[in-house]
Amino acid sequence: MLWPITYERKVRYGDIDSQGIVFNGNYLTYYDDAITDLFIAAELTPDVTHAAGYDVVTAHATVDFRATAGLFETLEVDVRVARIGNTSVTFSLQSRVGDRITTEATIIYVTVDAETLKPVPVPETFAAAMQAVHDEQIVR
Amino acid sequence: MLWPITYERKVRYGDIDSQGIVFNGNYLTYYDDAITDLFIAAELTPDVTHAAGYDVVTAHATVDFRATAGLFETLEVDVRVARIGNTSVTFSLQSRVGDRITTEATIIYVTVDAETLKPVPVPETFAAAMQAVHDEQIVR
Amino acid sequence: MLWPITYERKVRYGDIDSQGIVFNGNYLTYYDDAITDLFIAAELTPDVTHAAGYDVVTAHATVDFRATAGLFETLEVDVRVARIGNTSVTFSLQSRVGDRITTEATIIYVTVDAETLKPVPVPETFAAAMQAVHDEQIVR
Amino acid sequence: MLWPITYERKVRYGDIDSQGIVFNGNYLTYYDDAITDLFIAAELTPDVTHAAGYDVVTAHATVDFRATAGLFETLEVDVRVARIGNTSVTFSLQSRVGDRITTEATIIYVTVDAETLKPVPVPETFAAAMQAVHDEQIVR
Repeated sequence: MLWPITYERKVRYGDIDSQGIVFNGNYLTYYDDAITDLFIAAELTPDVTHAAGYDVVTAHATVDFRATAGLFETLEVDVRVARIGNTSVTFSLQSRVGDRITTEATIIYVTVDAETLKPVPVPETFAAAMQAVHDEQIVR
Repeated sequence: MLWPITYERKVRYGDIDSQGIVFNGNYLTYYDDAITDLFIAAELTPDVTHAAGYDVVTAHATVDFRATAGLFETLEVDVRVARIGNTSVTFSLQSRVGDRITTEATIIYVTVDAETLKPVPVPETFAAAMQAVHDEQIVR
Repeated sequence: MLWPITYERKVRYGDIDSQGIVFNGNYLTYYDDAITDLFIAAELTPDVTHAAGYDVVTAHATVDFRATAGLFETLEVDVRVARIGNTSVTFSLQSRVGDRITTEATIIYVTVDAETLKPVPVPETFAAAMQAVHDEQIVR
Repeated sequence: MLWPITYERKVRYGDIDSQGIVFNGNYLTYYDDAITDLFIAAELTPDVTHAAGYDVVTAHATVDFRATAGLFETLEVDVRVARIGNTSVTFSLQSRVGDRITTEATIIYVTVDAETLKPVPVPETFAAAMQAVHDEQIVR
């Protein structure tokens, strides 16, 4: 599997709980950070999507916790678009400390009209911009 | 459906993002807070579980985002044990602003040996303590 | 000393660090929460101040850390306006677990024009609204 | 002024508030991250200080907010030891977006006995380790 973006975060005091491991509640934020980096790489920042009349909202998240990460370890969060549907975009993500996978996740965004916030078909410009930063063909 | 615990959190500046709504990455933390309150109500704090030789770890989370919550709104997070399996405990959760459901979630904990961190059967004392704060029979 | 607002927060897993005490980095957020409650009590929400043409920005914070707070303890954060200056408002704050003071702080806001963000004199309507929720005379 | 450590953080959705700028409550966490990096560079991690019988606790923080930082901007946090006292270590910090200083801070740590948590003189090994990563002579 190829990951177009890997977001790195060194684990610090504010990230861990009294067990000395990354607090589980932080992972959704790390995933959001990684997806944000993917959008930046694809040049799909809010000003661009708003100018094109649409926005994205988080609709679903599934996270499996496999192992723990500790203080000063570097967490690497890999992200790619797994599938583009009619009005949704599915991301696959995993977090690792080196080769040790700590979590795996699927997160689904829905494309919505920037004014009405009602779902709209994923714009072809969005799909093309995402494809441009993926080496593998994105499933449609 | 009956919810033994409802955790309340007024939405404040630190909770929202630039869209003026609760940042999606915060929900796992609110869920953790609600489950913590359920454990406290059942008198299953860490000192109690450690003394009994086990601990719990988060294994899985599924979240569906239904609607948004805004500044100064009060988010209520309902939680209950949906099922107790052999080595796992499944929680059902939802967050609401009044009657408007903003998210629904399923979170699974695994009971582990406090020393080896290997999965162990859910202790009967745990199941009994949880049942004591639920009006409905917990599915086994 | 009289405190018009006391903000309560039960200490949870996400609040503490590996030493099992509230992470020092969280206190500015708790203070912001307490000041927000004071603004709400005084009916000085953003819509009100924006309609009157001004906004407030944080200019300064001083925090003294006196003692620690641990898991499941209830932190109470007291706040009052200590002084209203020409273009600034000084808040006094303290956090406690019962009678044990954990931190003391001074935070200064500056009133700014809602459009230009340049400092403007503290509006008399602001001073009057704050005075209305304080039993003691606010120093001018 | 020479800064031995500069901690970088790209501003993301979870860092900003509804005004689109970094939430003021987050700065103490960024400072803690920067000081942590300085301790790591000086090889003064918790295992090292605990083995030597002491620990450090945060005693005081002063922050001046000068300017704002926005989404996707890179915040750079500079830190150095400004002074080592009898039982305290004073850090100077600033955060910048390029040359634009957004905050300036002074944070004071106290060295304490690892067992009793009572203040103890700053160990010479600590002072020497910190000096080794500073080009300028640290004030004693």
